[in-house]
Amino acid sequence: MPHDPVLTPDQLKNIHAWWRAANYLSVGQIYLMDNPLLREPLLPEHIKPRLLGHWGTTPGLNFIYAHLNRSIMARDLDMMYIMGPGHGGPGPVAAGWLEGTYSETYPDISQDLAGMKRLFRQFSFPGGIPSHVAPETPGSIHEGGELGYALSHAYGAAFDNPELIVATVIGDGEAETGPLAASWHSNKFINPARDGAVLPILHLNGYKIANPTILDRISREELNDLLRGYGHTPYFVEGNDPDQMHQDFARTLDVCLDKIHEIWRQAREDGNLERPRWPMIVLRSPKGWTGPAEVDGQKVEGTWRSHQVPFAAARENDSHRAVLETWLRSYRPEELFDELGVPVATIRELHPTRQRRMSATPHSNGGILLRDLRMPAFADYAVQVENPGTGSVESTRVLGTFLRDVMAGNMDNFRVFAPDENNSNRLDAVLEVTDRAWNARMIPGDDHLAPDGRVMEILSEHTCQGWLEGYLLTGRHGFFSCYEAFIHVIDSMFNQHAKWLTTTNHIPWRRPVASLNYLLTSHVWRQDHNGFSHQDPGFIDHVMNKKADVIRVYLPPDANTLLSVADHCLRSRQYVNVIVAGKQPQVQYLDMPQAIEHCTKGIGIWDWASSDADSEPDVVMGCAGDVPTMETLAAVEILRFHFPDLRIRFINVVDLMRLQDDREHSHGLSGSDFDALFTTNKPVIFTYHGYPWLIHRLTYHRTNHANFHVRGYKEEGTTTTPFDMCVLNQIDRFNLSIDVIDRVPRLRDISAHVREELKNKLIEHRLYIETHGEDMPEIRNWQWSA
Amino acid sequence: MPHDPVLTPDQLKNIHAWWRAANYLSVGQIYLMDNPLLREPLLPEHIKPRLLGHWGTTPGLNFIYAHLNRSIMARDLDMMYIMGPGHGGPGPVAAGWLEGTYSETYPDISQDLAGMKRLFRQFSFPGGIPSHVAPETPGSIHEGGELGYALSHAYGAAFDNPELIVATVIGDGEAETGPLAASWHSNKFINPARDGAVLPILHLNGYKIANPTILDRISREELNDLLRGYGHTPYFVEGNDPDQMHQDFARTLDVCLDKIHEIWRQAREDGNLERPRWPMIVLRSPKGWTGPAEVDGQKVEGTWRSHQVPFAAARENDSHRAVLETWLRSYRPEELFDELGVPVATIRELHPTRQRRMSATPHSNGGILLRDLRMPAFADYAVQVENPGTGSVESTRVLGTFLRDVMAGNMDNFRVFAPDENNSNRLDAVLEVTDRAWNARMIPGDDHLAPDGRVMEILSEHTCQGWLEGYLLTGRHGFFSCYEAFIHVIDSMFNQHAKWLTTTNHIPWRRPVASLNYLLTSHVWRQDHNGFSHQDPGFIDHVMNKKADVIRVYLPPDANTLLSVADHCLRSRQYVNVIVAGKQPQVQYLDMPQAIEHCTKGIGIWDWASSDADSEPDVVMGCAGDVPTMETLAAVEILRFHFPDLRIRFINVVDLMRLQDDREHSHGLSGSDFDALFTTNKPVIFTYHGYPWLIHRLTYHRTNHANFHVRGYKEEGTTTTPFDMCVLNQIDRFNLSIDVIDRVPRLRDISAHVREELKNKLIEHRLYIETHGEDMPEIRNWQWSA
Repeated sequence: MPHDPVLTPDQLKNIHAWWRAANYLSVGQIYLMDNPLLREPLLPEHIKPRLLGHWGTTPGLNFIYAHLNRSIMARDLDMMYIMGPGHGGPGPVAAGWLEGTYSETYPDISQDLAGMKRLFRQFSFPGGIPSHVAPETPGSIHEGGELGYALSHAYGAAFDNPELIVATVIGDGEAETGPLAASWHSNKFINPARDGAVLPILHLNGYKIANPTILDRISREELNDLLRGYGHTPYFVEGNDPDQMHQDFARTLDVCLDKIHEIWRQAREDGNLERPRWPMIVLRSPKGWTGPAEVDGQKVEGTWRSHQVPFAAARENDSHRAVLETWLRSYRPEELFDELGVPVATIRELHPTRQRRMSATPHSNGGILLRDLRMPAFADYAVQVENPGTGSVESTRVLGTFLRDVMAGNMDNFRVFAPDENNSNRLDAVLEVTDRAWNARMIPGDDHLAPDGRVMEILSEHTCQGWLEGYLLTGRHGFFSCYEAFIHVIDSMFNQHAKWLTTTNHIPWRRPVASLNYLLTSHVWRQDHNGFSHQDPGFIDHVMNKKADVIRVYLPPDANTLLSVADHCLRSRQYVNVIVAGKQPQVQYLDMPQAIEHCTKGIGIWDWASSDADSEPDVVMGCAGDVPTMETLAAVEILRFHFPDLRIRFINVVDLMRLQDDREHSHGLSGSDFDALFTTNKPVIFTYHGYPWLIHRLTYHRTNHANFHVRGYKEEGTTTTPFDMCVLNQIDRFNLSIDVIDRVPRLRDISAHVREELKNKLIEHRLYIETHGEDMPEIRNWQWSA
Repeated sequence: MPHDPVLTPDQLKNIHAWWRAANYLSVGQIYLMDNPLLREPLLPEHIKPRLLGHWGTTPGLNFIYAHLNRSIMARDLDMMYIMGPGHGGPGPVAAGWLEGTYSETYPDISQDLAGMKRLFRQFSFPGGIPSHVAPETPGSIHEGGELGYALSHAYGAAFDNPELIVATVIGDGEAETGPLAASWHSNKFINPARDGAVLPILHLNGYKIANPTILDRISREELNDLLRGYGHTPYFVEGNDPDQMHQDFARTLDVCLDKIHEIWRQAREDGNLERPRWPMIVLRSPKGWTGPAEVDGQKVEGTWRSHQVPFAAARENDSHRAVLETWLRSYRPEELFDELGVPVATIRELHPTRQRRMSATPHSNGGILLRDLRMPAFADYAVQVENPGTGSVESTRVLGTFLRDVMAGNMDNFRVFAPDENNSNRLDAVLEVTDRAWNARMIPGDDHLAPDGRVMEILSEHTCQGWLEGYLLTGRHGFFSCYEAFIHVIDSMFNQHAKWLTTTNHIPWRRPVASLNYLLTSHVWRQDHNGFSHQDPGFIDHVMNKKADVIRVYLPPDANTLLSVADHCLRSRQYVNVIVAGKQPQVQYLDMPQAIEHCTKGIGIWDWASSDADSEPDVVMGCAGDVPTMETLAAVEILRFHFPDLRIRFINVVDLMRLQDDREHSHGLSGSDFDALFTTNKPVIFTYHGYPWLIHRLTYHRTNHANFHVRGYKEEGTTTTPFDMCVLNQIDRFNLSIDVIDRVPRLRDISAHVREELKNKLIEHRLYIETHGEDMPEIRNWQWSA
């Protein structure tokens, strides 16, 4: 059924001209280093020696951009554009240049012939810009490197932005990834009254690097079912004739935007919060659309051969160069740019102004919009600690009360995220002031579900992480709690975010965003019940491979230190903060003044646990992590009982980066400060929460490193008791005491019977747990009493 | 519309009895340590002190098990059972015990009262078995720890197993994860003629740990659309009345199995390979079905409160204990087990025999079925190397020719896997003997797609990994090539697989399976074109956190060493082998005899590159990785030119584990062997492919460690030239030469002008690339000529 045209002939002509201009500039970026407007014959030296870039997806991205611009202008929309196929980097750069943003951001890339030449040359060129959408690209919050996160980023951006429409292109390659596949269901977590909208545009261009795409090769009926099953109403725009496609896409976009506004109206005026069926677009267009149809007798347009650089020998091969020239001239640049290389007026006018330009939206530079959190005084949540090493407190539950009030004070720009683990992680106090976001069916008995909930729970670490990234990068704050072992699910997403932060640190116009805060709990030492598969403290190691200036790792040993650390993290900017803390009841060590002092220093001697009384110790016992702290203290107690004159120095580390040299990390200790703590020649028994070699990595340049003996998790575990987990990995009090005995020379001759006794305790423990199924009472109920 | 009953009254009664027995045994495992058949009143001391386990999903798993057994017997099926909600560990243990497998496997857990007591006690008990489905569980290839992999494992098991039906339960929690969401499309990669079938059973029990599930809370119409969109015909079985549910499930299972056999028949007899619409089942049943309806006034059955242990105080609290006793007695154990605790005859007969038992299928202990690969002689694929450090070869392309012939010789038990990167990774020769698996729509111009293809490509690292794991664990062989940076996507899946291998190494009845072989290519040093997001060599670090006895890491510097390493890996068992090798043209070093010798040793001095002539060197230059090898050699050349009498020892490392102490890794070098190579006191400049601290970690106990100066990737990168990537991270020839100059005392006084010259070369490089966009010819075309 043919439709009436939506675009007038003039509108059609102009929008098509804009698209031609964007495509021309895209091809130019990929191929040319000189002669940008082909005002002289195209010579080999005009072609870049290394041709790098992705053409295939770019014309589609540009096509959509042109049409979104029409809608923004016609409707005065607040819109941002997320490009899943972000390897199509030339597209948004071209658009930003046409909109003037690029020259405003990078004055050297002026909107004229000289600027165009630099625009072309800098792309994928040493000293220039990356080949993908990147932090350097105005208007972007989404690196084009790793695929899968377009939709979850988009929803993150839309939360709490009631006027924002996030147009989101999902490549049909990206659609095959797990994270993307999961994130379709994000529409069950968005509130049409208070959140913005996501408009997914599934771009079927049919091919990946070398293969067809699944979604392009299932039947239209199946695809329609699938997208309806995701909760959308899909609208299909398919073809390759530009005029027809312009009309179809414009009409479809109008329909979708009308739908979105009607959904908003119903929610906001009629109070209808029932989950709507959100519209979306399926755009099926040829890969490398408008590119060369054939090269060397092989079909290029509409095939995977268009994916990157459609033909590579344009510098060396005259016939390839002729193809390139014909291709470039097919856009008729002489109609698009004037004498000076400036876009002609019709093109210059075909975009919104100022912050309505998608290349200039402040949402894409979230630091501009970032407001400080209104923070309650964390000290008010302090646990009373009469005597160190006593009591029984779930540290993360205490944190929950603090987070509750952070939430209460920031109900428009703070959310917490967890893969179905918020309550398991003991953060349920947050539900006293808000609910879990949920806009699917509800039934009686449901617990704290509501469309306007601010606790984001879906059983997908990927989706949680993607939402949070999108939320942070658009200028808000968040907190992600996760089982420690399974945070590895988002290792690669963390990589991309950390790299984004690292890069933006060097881009002056990018403003700092709130840090990404992880609480890793249900950690390795208390996954005694779920067993071996749930035991992996290696995320810290993974994190440590990234640049020191964006990474912080904290191991608060108890509730008050956890509060202090969390407060610090929530106030920080441009970091990834990793906090590791247990959720099980445990003894507490520091009252709040002590906790604040300890966290401020990040590392320190605990005098009450030490017996070296300002003299040189016989041994240093260091620890980082809550369970290691307890076992180390218990070992100190054992040793002091048996060897009352043994001089033990007890050091606890909260801020892991303190162990590093101050030349390597801004939190690092100087050599002399480190030596003052750990001595230059005494044995150090260090008990660490994670894999032990990380401590060696952090300290191997230190004077006393040769005397460091580190205990940690060494991949021993099963379903057993909490203390047995320690024993299996030799971080328990008995083994640590033996470690000291074996390393302090003056104990060697007098300690044989103690060593024997400790070995017997280990046997006793083993017999006890295998008989009783739980730890010995003296272990279970241990409190510091030295 | 009511249906005629499928089950006769007797069948119904028996199947229900079997289910009651399995449920009874499941509850017993979670709660009891004594009094297994309640032949005395239930006392506190009969209850385990620590109650650990997951009840919620277990009755559903048992229900399905019972019905699958009926079908296996009726149809003599070869079936295996994959339980996505594998935290329901008590279920398959109960089933295995009822089938006799458990007692055959663990004679101590006999099929009688004493055995039942031990069965109960061992569950989640120190010295016993894990709380989840685990390697210890007969019939399992699927650890219940991390969710998301049920379907991809199932397809991996089904490939090349034409008679096998893999019944696969997908929890509605698991269904929210990304990896699971992506893996539905696996049905576009299965060949009904040559592969088995996967029967997905989506189990909607409505709740996760604390939240409802998405798929349970969308409309029936949406769910139906979604599953049809995935390419399935879903059959719904919904309710909570056992009799009705038994009849419905039995009928539905019959329909599905008929369908599967009809699809097989059409493919195998009629030659119809067109992608069928595979049947699947949606089972909607209450969470914690048959458990206590309410405890302490709170609804338990049918809610998230059933997820783990439905009530925890059975030992301490009399009323809870009474609930437990009532619950247990509701299964009427006295009808199910005889005087001696042996299952009564009707139950004992209600399962298939021998290997038809799902708890005893050899597919779940793949080592039993594993056949050695028929291997071509890898030396036949050797690259000719006239002079070391010359030529220009894409190493992975050479590997491709070898893999082609491995494939040709093993067309029923070998596959290669890649996330749309097989050809990009230069393994396209494989397509000479097989195609890419593809059973979606095909169109003219498609390149090597076929339903019986053996190159498995989907743009999902998760799905590739899951398929491969399923394929390996059921006794076949595979090879996974991936861009180095994005292998982090499956970090957590690797963790689980490595833990599985570690555990099975200690389970005598588990037979060794083929190693999981990764080729990481498109690596950090040649992601100069895709930029910073594609640069991460940290998977090696991640891998190194796992047990040494399952981990191998190889960095072959050229094509012949790559061939030798790959041959070794493909023959190995029970490892994860990580091979890192570039795909770009590069100089070659070793002819095949040298390569074999070098790979056999794993580390060695290259005499032709050294100038220490059996005397003590002035400096040791070590390297690991192809680009580091080239840059180190080029540095040697520079140094020998300027300082002809400098004694340099050149050491190349292929097998990274050789650097470790032989007490820590079986491939490690002894202290004396290490010292003989690296000296005890000379400066060592070591250039490493990845993050430099890993080399320190591996060597910090070595005598000469204090003199190790390691260069590697330090997170500096963008879109630039290949050599510039080296310069940015200071692993280039000029910086390495300066490193030597700065560390060899006798050079210090005579080298000022050389140092200056090298610094100037770095400036010259920078100016050249920013002008020309590519590296200087002397760099690009470098060949060893010293």
